[in-house]
Amino acid sequence: MSTLTSAGMVNAYVPGASSRIPEEDRAMIERRAALLGPAYRLFYEEPVHLVRGEGVHLYDGDGNAYLDVYNNVASLGHGHPAVVEAVSRQWAVLNTHTRYLHDAILAYAERLSATFPAPLSQVMLTCTGSEANDLAYRIAKHRTGGTGVIVTSLAYHGVTDAVSQFSPSLGASVPLGAHVRTVPAPDLYRRNTDDLGRDFADDVRAALADMRASGIRPAMMICDTIFSSDGVLADPPGFLAEAVAVVREAGALFVADEVQPGFGRTGDAMWGFERHGILPDMVSLGKPMGNGQPVAGLVLQPDVVADFGAKVRYFNTYGGNPVSCAAGMAVLDVIARENLIQNARNTGAYFLERLRTFAECYAAVGDVRGRGLFIGVEIVRDRASKEPDAALAGHLVNALRRRRVLISASGPHANILKIRPPIVFSRENVDTFMDALEGVAAE
Amino acid sequence: MSTLTSAGMVNAYVPGASSRIPEEDRAMIERRAALLGPAYRLFYEEPVHLVRGEGVHLYDGDGNAYLDVYNNVASLGHGHPAVVEAVSRQWAVLNTHTRYLHDAILAYAERLSATFPAPLSQVMLTCTGSEANDLAYRIAKHRTGGTGVIVTSLAYHGVTDAVSQFSPSLGASVPLGAHVRTVPAPDLYRRNTDDLGRDFADDVRAALADMRASGIRPAMMICDTIFSSDGVLADPPGFLAEAVAVVREAGALFVADEVQPGFGRTGDAMWGFERHGILPDMVSLGKPMGNGQPVAGLVLQPDVVADFGAKVRYFNTYGGNPVSCAAGMAVLDVIARENLIQNARNTGAYFLERLRTFAECYAAVGDVRGRGLFIGVEIVRDRASKEPDAALAGHLVNALRRRRVLISASGPHANILKIRPPIVFSRENVDTFMDALEGVAAE
Repeated sequence: MSTLTSAGMVNAYVPGASSRIPEEDRAMIERRAALLGPAYRLFYEEPVHLVRGEGVHLYDGDGNAYLDVYNNVASLGHGHPAVVEAVSRQWAVLNTHTRYLHDAILAYAERLSATFPAPLSQVMLTCTGSEANDLAYRIAKHRTGGTGVIVTSLAYHGVTDAVSQFSPSLGASVPLGAHVRTVPAPDLYRRNTDDLGRDFADDVRAALADMRASGIRPAMMICDTIFSSDGVLADPPGFLAEAVAVVREAGALFVADEVQPGFGRTGDAMWGFERHGILPDMVSLGKPMGNGQPVAGLVLQPDVVADFGAKVRYFNTYGGNPVSCAAGMAVLDVIARENLIQNARNTGAYFLERLRTFAECYAAVGDVRGRGLFIGVEIVRDRASKEPDAALAGHLVNALRRRRVLISASGPHANILKIRPPIVFSRENVDTFMDALEGVAAE
Repeated sequence: MSTLTSAGMVNAYVPGASSRIPEEDRAMIERRAALLGPAYRLFYEEPVHLVRGEGVHLYDGDGNAYLDVYNNVASLGHGHPAVVEAVSRQWAVLNTHTRYLHDAILAYAERLSATFPAPLSQVMLTCTGSEANDLAYRIAKHRTGGTGVIVTSLAYHGVTDAVSQFSPSLGASVPLGAHVRTVPAPDLYRRNTDDLGRDFADDVRAALADMRASGIRPAMMICDTIFSSDGVLADPPGFLAEAVAVVREAGALFVADEVQPGFGRTGDAMWGFERHGILPDMVSLGKPMGNGQPVAGLVLQPDVVADFGAKVRYFNTYGGNPVSCAAGMAVLDVIARENLIQNARNTGAYFLERLRTFAECYAAVGDVRGRGLFIGVEIVRDRASKEPDAALAGHLVNALRRRRVLISASGPHANILKIRPPIVFSRENVDTFMDALEGVAAE
């Protein structure tokens, strides 16, 4: 009962692996394969068939509620009325592009850039995080004259042709570009070190040297500042700083990929990079940015994009349209009004505490870590050897799903429970989750 | 008063070129530059500041109506109630991703693929046309083992790093990839030929030979089937067929980029490629697909994606979400219910007739061409020499804008009026446009 499939995806549905799929869902899965082809994947041994969402709950056709402890797009909760209203209102008024003057994109860019340290003051809007990272790469190449990219060993940054070449987590069938070098993820649990930041910086130095030895000039290092696909790596705060300095000395740029940690999820601040005391050249945004509206983008230091923008025009037909800006603005409003950064911090702290207490009685938990409402739990065969137990992690994920509690798994060994609920998650929701986890563990 | 700016964009606003911009708009333009940086461009010598849209009209803050003879995203008209209602309803119910079972994407994929010839039966959804063409390229490389791309000399296919490398219309500052070859656009007006299809196929043969001489294996040819940025090239029907056969013989794929001609605009059929009696390996879709919702995608022949999909997973977080599928479904409904393909054909035929009559008395019109509601008008200094007159084209575009009629220009010499209204455009709307054009011409 492994969580790995042939394409290397953790927690993917494997056809034929479960006999407990209802007839109706089985028919839908076949229809999906016929209509959408083979590149689409479902979650879980028994895929979940959803029809409705509200707050932290998703519902199937029989009205059963699933507790959503995984989705980071509907970060304010499913169907948040403020977003639904803002989007519906703007759709009825105007939805056009950025080659006409319109106030929405300016008001939104002003509001968004105000959440960043001052030098990060310009905003370019795309529709997806992949497009944002792709644009960051175009700008970095133009700015540096280089092509080289450094990422962590299991990084995920998106699915365009260029970005998939620096997203090793897509698996061996998606080869890395010849201009890409990976560095080991800064993993405090598995790495024997007394200075993670120095070790990580040394790895980056070595990667830069290797790149240069191949005649490749470095353009950028890009990091998800919570290292989600590498297994959720948050500590110690500041460990990124030395590596970023090394990258800058080499004439390359540092891009913070905030698609996953951004918009308050870590509970420390609005942006994950702030935990590390660093100032990125560019920051990419996505997923929770519109609570479901396809909106993403870059926030940049002006000098980084000055020459690129003077010579190269950028137009993204739907990017920055008034509806997307209305959704983005509503999300910023709700985060402020409902104190969601504080909620992520407090509920996250409570969640970590409950998980650590649980770990005292459940030997398979090797590590509980994370920050705010981005949590990873290492499942191991043995705490001393730290041998990963992907089979047990997969079992837990699927057993929770059968109890209608949705999480997933990640990490290089597919053994890390990925816990990442909407940031409106409450202590009561944590209690419900822990009851389910304890029930599953007792089985 | 040229329509060309430094970045090669036709009809771009050039700061300082007009003294007639209202103070409020001038302040907005400065705010835009500060907030969005230098890569964004506006249309017109005097940019248009919009606040509302309805049907074929856009409105500024003073309530002035602009006749929209240009926008192909809000193809059913701005704020079409069927789309607004479908999107608003689905937003309130559920907006999640494709790793759960949900009926909307299946119902939509079924409905969409039914509009294609049978072998084009699988659907992959993205958020933008750029992403769709980028994915097509990834699939073509995987399928053929090649990397080479053939495009027309002023093609535009999108803005990702990979796609911008085969989008020569982005200008010299965005260099083409070393694996890209361009062929002259199949231009019946400027090319002295009695067999355009044969000539175009010969050019493609030469490009393939040149590619092979450089050790590059061909992966695909991609064409916008109405050759919009090349200057709107529709005739004679069928001219693409021989070139497509040549591409297939070389082991490469043919991708029809229907982002601009698709969804009934040409009035012949739902898809532009049908005019040429060809069957593409993949078809990319975008702009009008959701009437403003960021939805795009590929329709494919299953064998083309079979091995790619078995080995490579494709997940686009917002792609194919229930709201995007609801918008897409509403668009297909409205096209059928309001007979919009027929309207594009009939109104388009009337539009061409009015323009040809106009040309009889206005010597600067060198050619009137197009199909359905996709029309190009060549502005020349002299009909015999066909010398392009970009300055006059620019003057006409800007003079029409001052009369609150919105079109743009395109083509290699920036001298072709691009006329591309929402496909709900009526004969009365054509009359209004012609009155404005005749008034401008008389000035």
